[in-house]
Amino acid sequence: MPEFDIVLVGALYQGNVGQTARAMKNFGFSRLVLVDACPIGDEARIAASHAADVLERAERCTLEEVYGRSALTVATTGELNKSVCRPTRMPYFSPAELREHLAEVEGRVAILFGRENWGLNNREIRMCDIVCTIPTSPEYPILNLSHAVAVVCYELAHLPRGTYPLATHREMDCLYRHIDRFLDRIEHPPFKRESTMTLLRRVLGRAKLTTREASVMHGLLRRTEWHIARRKRSPREV
Amino acid sequence: MPEFDIVLVGALYQGNVGQTARAMKNFGFSRLVLVDACPIGDEARIAASHAADVLERAERCTLEEVYGRSALTVATTGELNKSVCRPTRMPYFSPAELREHLAEVEGRVAILFGRENWGLNNREIRMCDIVCTIPTSPEYPILNLSHAVAVVCYELAHLPRGTYPLATHREMDCLYRHIDRFLDRIEHPPFKRESTMTLLRRVLGRAKLTTREASVMHGLLRRTEWHIARRKRSPREV
Repeated sequence: MPEFDIVLVGALYQGNVGQTARAMKNFGFSRLVLVDACPIGDEARIAASHAADVLERAERCTLEEVYGRSALTVATTGELNKSVCRPTRMPYFSPAELREHLAEVEGRVAILFGRENWGLNNREIRMCDIVCTIPTSPEYPILNLSHAVAVVCYELAHLPRGTYPLATHREMDCLYRHIDRFLDRIEHPPFKRESTMTLLRRVLGRAKLTTREASVMHGLLRRTEWHIARRKRSPREV
Repeated sequence: MPEFDIVLVGALYQGNVGQTARAMKNFGFSRLVLVDACPIGDEARIAASHAADVLERAERCTLEEVYGRSALTVATTGELNKSVCRPTRMPYFSPAELREHLAEVEGRVAILFGRENWGLNNREIRMCDIVCTIPTSPEYPILNLSHAVAVVCYELAHLPRGTYPLATHREMDCLYRHIDRFLDRIEHPPFKRESTMTLLRRVLGRAKLTTREASVMHGLLRRTEWHIARRKRSPREV
């Protein structure tokens, strides 16, 4: 995994810088670099909310320093270029392709985001190794700066996800046998049995039950069986 | 492809509603639904920028109406639940998994986003068919509302990307033959030839040249060859 610097070039509004700091921290990034950015004050700190620390530690430097110390520099552009064969902006990576491309890179990687009103200029883009374009609608292709950072950070984040135990093959088999016995109980016709069991396997297979969910299914079947049995024993009581 | 309703439940700040409208339009979505949301005024319109039309057409209705008319409802939650086996919030889909899951669905799909301060409540989540969780850092798991919408819309968008013609196999073969002749010109030792050609094939193969880039490479080789030839013909002139 590379170390990422999120570099804002010429950011104009401190609210956006604060929101950027927040989005970075939300996705586990902490190294914010400001090049020719607006002054940072209370408005930025309010927008950063619990990411004020990212804002406080933000580094101010020149673009030349960023290019000089990075193993790889990535220019982000919001809009697809009309002249798709121009080498300044094409071929580009989507954020998902960038993630894949950088997965096995080691070293310092700078991701550059441009000004709110007109992005990075051609000179800034040309000096970068890679172009990353967030696909947007031609009807309104200009993303808010912090939204662009959020989308790229979301893609580049390698966050652990909560895991949960899926029911094992054995547990599911046990459930299917229970359902089969249950179908006997409700006098489901034998000639329909195979297709109905297949249908239920498809439904429960697609749903990918957890161990707990399979166990709740057993419980529901048992409870239903108990009610059927009770009714059969003493029909008048029900 | 389903039709998507982006549903904000109990949104508190009109700036966020405006930013949400903008993010939706950026990724090609237009149907904004407001349930128990704050009043919408100038602040929202300024934040929406060129997506004021999405804001104007926003529909106000109740959650019951949303559940009633949707083929599928998706609850988004920002934070991974600690008790991962609780069926209210688990198992969940990541936004990328949601995209895959919905790829072949037809009908109206509502994606619900909760309040800025505490998201959707358990009752609202339980009534949804699917839970979608954006993986976030445990250090600061609360996303800004419009950032959450931007990330989900980014994943669900099916936007065409600009295409560009990659060089054909034949064009690349032609380039490799040119490079081979060029190596003769610079008296590259024959015993190293095969490994060098393989290395160059790997480098250019990884870079996936476009037709234009391959043609520029030919041009560079030809220009260099011309200079070598000129030097050989009249070494004193150089």
